[in-house]
Amino acid sequence: MTDRSETRWNGWGPQDQADTLGARNEVWTWLARELGMPSLLATPARPLEELAIAPPRLTSEDRDKFVLLLGPDNVRDDKAERARHALGKSYHDLLRLRAGDLSVVPDAVLYPRNAGDVADVLAYAGERRIAIVPYGGGTSVVGGVTANGEGFNAVATLDLSQMARLIGVDPVSGTADVEPGIIGPALEHALNAQGLTLGHFPQSFEYSTLGGWIAHRGAGQQSHLYGRAEDWLIAADLATPRGVLHTRDFPASAAGPRLRDLIPGSEGVFGIITRARVRVRVQPAVKQYSGFLFPDFRSGTAAIRAAAQTGLPAAMLRLSDAQETRFYRTFSELGRNTGLRDWLTGHYLRLKGLDRLPAAMIAGFEGDPAQVRDAAEAFAKIAKANGALALGRKPGKRWYEGRFHGPYLRDPMMDRGVGVDTLETATHWSNLDTLYRAVKEALEAAIAANAPRPGARGVVMCHISHCYPDGASLYFTYIFPRALDGEIAQWRAIKVAASDAIAAHGGTISHHHGVGEDHSQWIVQEKGELGMEILRAIKRTLDPEGILNPGKFFPN
Amino acid sequence: MTDRSETRWNGWGPQDQADTLGARNEVWTWLARELGMPSLLATPARPLEELAIAPPRLTSEDRDKFVLLLGPDNVRDDKAERARHALGKSYHDLLRLRAGDLSVVPDAVLYPRNAGDVADVLAYAGERRIAIVPYGGGTSVVGGVTANGEGFNAVATLDLSQMARLIGVDPVSGTADVEPGIIGPALEHALNAQGLTLGHFPQSFEYSTLGGWIAHRGAGQQSHLYGRAEDWLIAADLATPRGVLHTRDFPASAAGPRLRDLIPGSEGVFGIITRARVRVRVQPAVKQYSGFLFPDFRSGTAAIRAAAQTGLPAAMLRLSDAQETRFYRTFSELGRNTGLRDWLTGHYLRLKGLDRLPAAMIAGFEGDPAQVRDAAEAFAKIAKANGALALGRKPGKRWYEGRFHGPYLRDPMMDRGVGVDTLETATHWSNLDTLYRAVKEALEAAIAANAPRPGARGVVMCHISHCYPDGASLYFTYIFPRALDGEIAQWRAIKVAASDAIAAHGGTISHHHGVGEDHSQWIVQEKGELGMEILRAIKRTLDPEGILNPGKFFPN
Repeated sequence: MTDRSETRWNGWGPQDQADTLGARNEVWTWLARELGMPSLLATPARPLEELAIAPPRLTSEDRDKFVLLLGPDNVRDDKAERARHALGKSYHDLLRLRAGDLSVVPDAVLYPRNAGDVADVLAYAGERRIAIVPYGGGTSVVGGVTANGEGFNAVATLDLSQMARLIGVDPVSGTADVEPGIIGPALEHALNAQGLTLGHFPQSFEYSTLGGWIAHRGAGQQSHLYGRAEDWLIAADLATPRGVLHTRDFPASAAGPRLRDLIPGSEGVFGIITRARVRVRVQPAVKQYSGFLFPDFRSGTAAIRAAAQTGLPAAMLRLSDAQETRFYRTFSELGRNTGLRDWLTGHYLRLKGLDRLPAAMIAGFEGDPAQVRDAAEAFAKIAKANGALALGRKPGKRWYEGRFHGPYLRDPMMDRGVGVDTLETATHWSNLDTLYRAVKEALEAAIAANAPRPGARGVVMCHISHCYPDGASLYFTYIFPRALDGEIAQWRAIKVAASDAIAAHGGTISHHHGVGEDHSQWIVQEKGELGMEILRAIKRTLDPEGILNPGKFFPN
Repeated sequence: MTDRSETRWNGWGPQDQADTLGARNEVWTWLARELGMPSLLATPARPLEELAIAPPRLTSEDRDKFVLLLGPDNVRDDKAERARHALGKSYHDLLRLRAGDLSVVPDAVLYPRNAGDVADVLAYAGERRIAIVPYGGGTSVVGGVTANGEGFNAVATLDLSQMARLIGVDPVSGTADVEPGIIGPALEHALNAQGLTLGHFPQSFEYSTLGGWIAHRGAGQQSHLYGRAEDWLIAADLATPRGVLHTRDFPASAAGPRLRDLIPGSEGVFGIITRARVRVRVQPAVKQYSGFLFPDFRSGTAAIRAAAQTGLPAAMLRLSDAQETRFYRTFSELGRNTGLRDWLTGHYLRLKGLDRLPAAMIAGFEGDPAQVRDAAEAFAKIAKANGALALGRKPGKRWYEGRFHGPYLRDPMMDRGVGVDTLETATHWSNLDTLYRAVKEALEAAIAANAPRPGARGVVMCHISHCYPDGASLYFTYIFPRALDGEIAQWRAIKVAASDAIAAHGGTISHHHGVGEDHSQWIVQEKGELGMEILRAIKRTLDPEGILNPGKFFPN
């Protein structure tokens, strides 16, 4: 069973994660300058020991019942357990946890052992009006696991970490049956032992779970090859207060709307995934990642579009805009002695016309050697035709090695008065530039308007993270000086400005993070009134008492 | 506007379609022998002129209202219009039409000109409890357009043939906006003019419509490359009695369940598609189809599985079982002087060990020359590794030229006491052989048990029509002597036996034909009780009066 005490309750990674940025003073000096701040402040998180927590609202009768159903070890309500399951890992969540705000916590954390336990808990919780919040890895960045029990007798978080088995593999059909609570590394380890892979590697891979990936309709970094959750999910069992929705595993069917399609994106509001059948593949013999430098974001975008529309089997085509290219390059080289190399590189780039607003790309190819060679060669041609300079495999290797590293940088930044948040959207190709500019401008303006002092500003970066024949996603990362006297209001103002810009300019409110609490106010505009009626009708059918993950997806 | 009087009201193709089989007496002699019949009987269809039809049930007030909404030319209730829109093109439908059974006919046929007309008609029909049956090409083979008005004041068929424009193309995003009533050739013609294609070529292509392809969740013969309807459909407007469900066109999204997924397979019971945004591609420079002969069905299946699981970009891999291979070969060569060639071929096949139960495959590749060459070479290796003999492009070319020809053979057979029907299913690879045997045996047994005389029998053939990484479809064609004293009962007994076998052995009740009236009794078993509750809740939300396409999809 996962020992969650080994990981940070209010941050990313293990308890003893080293602050790798701490020693690099030049980073902080540079960052302060980038943000228009004279200096950065020490803003450490409050330790759990100092904090008060309200007593659990669960009655002793309810608690006894859960103990009877699950066994005493699987019903927990100590402070640490409750605090750890209070929220997810969004910037908004971490702000609250680091400030010691435990006003939203589950009254109990339940650890079901199997689908039968889940069914028992749901049946009892329905009777007693106890809200149930499903919890996989707890890595939601959209408020997907907030222990919201408002209006209920109590709220219990259902931690699925004991339901984490690879149940079996059908090597002929290329499918695997898996329990929802398995985390990425454990799943890949079990599949790799049979020469197989799911190929789903989101940045949260080390801590997030299969059930979470499906529930929030996620995408991995290499989803162009391996598919998004809705592509590799073949069938699932969804436990609901009305019984189990068991969807069938046909490779394709014309027998009406496919019920399986209601499960990706269901975010725990329709039911709890207790078992999934997923498509697996033979592990790729070769993984090859290379760097390219394009004259600008637009030419890089054109190359990705050409590749996606000709069906080029890339694993990943990830293009940073000029700001992100510049920022990461400086960030990684600060304080390193790269003087001569820099001068030479700069000179070369000027010669190539790549010295103005160059956009860096990482192009990844996975498969057997011939497939990888053919695809990489075909892409190199497209890149060249769009003015790119091939940077070789070194940048690709560096990106690949650090591909799960992003979230680890947030805690040290938050320790120093720096806010960092991300959001992502998608639209069709002909609207991509419009959406890109609108969101970037909205973020820059909102950060400036909500900065702690005049002249302070944000760094707003963007990359295309995923591409499709008809469009692509835009992934924004923004770093800004925290307004320490009103951080939640600052976060919200920036979030609202960016989300309104997305909604007004033809983007989806999320390409792969989900809706949760944070995006629910934009969901009506995206789905339409009639669409929301359909989704509410499904909700009422499966969860008539509304106990499942309240406050998520559906706006209040 | 489509002039439906040019096509057969009770059969396939144009009114003046030549009976190409008529002159080939050797075919009929051979077929009688195959079916265990001493001879075949002349069983001509009854001409429309002879038939009686009940007066339309529409009140004059209702009729006037529709005329007011649509204009006088777009409201029709003459006998020919009503007869032509009574049923679809299934064997069951043709049996009834040929016998002159016009007990089920629409009371009026309405021709909306645009989405506004559709909305007006739905609003009025809801008030007046008039059932509405959407009608695209009328080519359903599962009772999808039956003018079932039982329990309603009247039933009107909504013929969408006036809503048949290519509205516009976004060449950057690779998408097209299209009206639902456009038939295959018109759509491809309009797209081809811009160098584009949808690539959706079902056998019904010449007469079926875009809206129909989406509504019944169809697949084209080359869907392996171009995608099924649910793959190429990006967004749609669905007119319902409660207003328009407008789904968004994001290339991907994590903003909850995707409402668009409710439209493919909705079969007119949730609403009427008035506009679709679809993914289009650059027309392939090369189309290359080749034949292979495998030692047996199993080795051919293994080759398809290997290709599908390694992501080989074939357009089509179509494998006939031994019976189908033998039947079509004999059928196409009967009466031709192929004696020496036959002897030589037979001799060669014996040498190669391919003379027992060989299975023929057509492998198709489409794209630019390099893509086609690479994919075709890769597949040839897989085929060879599975014992296949490459037959070259001649069989591929022949198949391609005749790819829409199948339905034309049914009328001449039905004129001569021969029944011919098809059904299709799909399952995962590890279950494919089990399902194949079960359905084949069920069909053979049911045909024998319901034959017109002792010793009469059917010819039951099968091919794999579509493949996926996790499984494949099985397409059965069966030819049998008609039991002239109880043809509907004979049809039903065979249908029930096969469908029960599909349901009992892990197949879907339809891979690409849909549900309609004919498969609705198996839909509960496939979707589950809770799944049906969800689908009924959606139906109630969009169509509270239940006027949309009654009797389809949902079992009575």
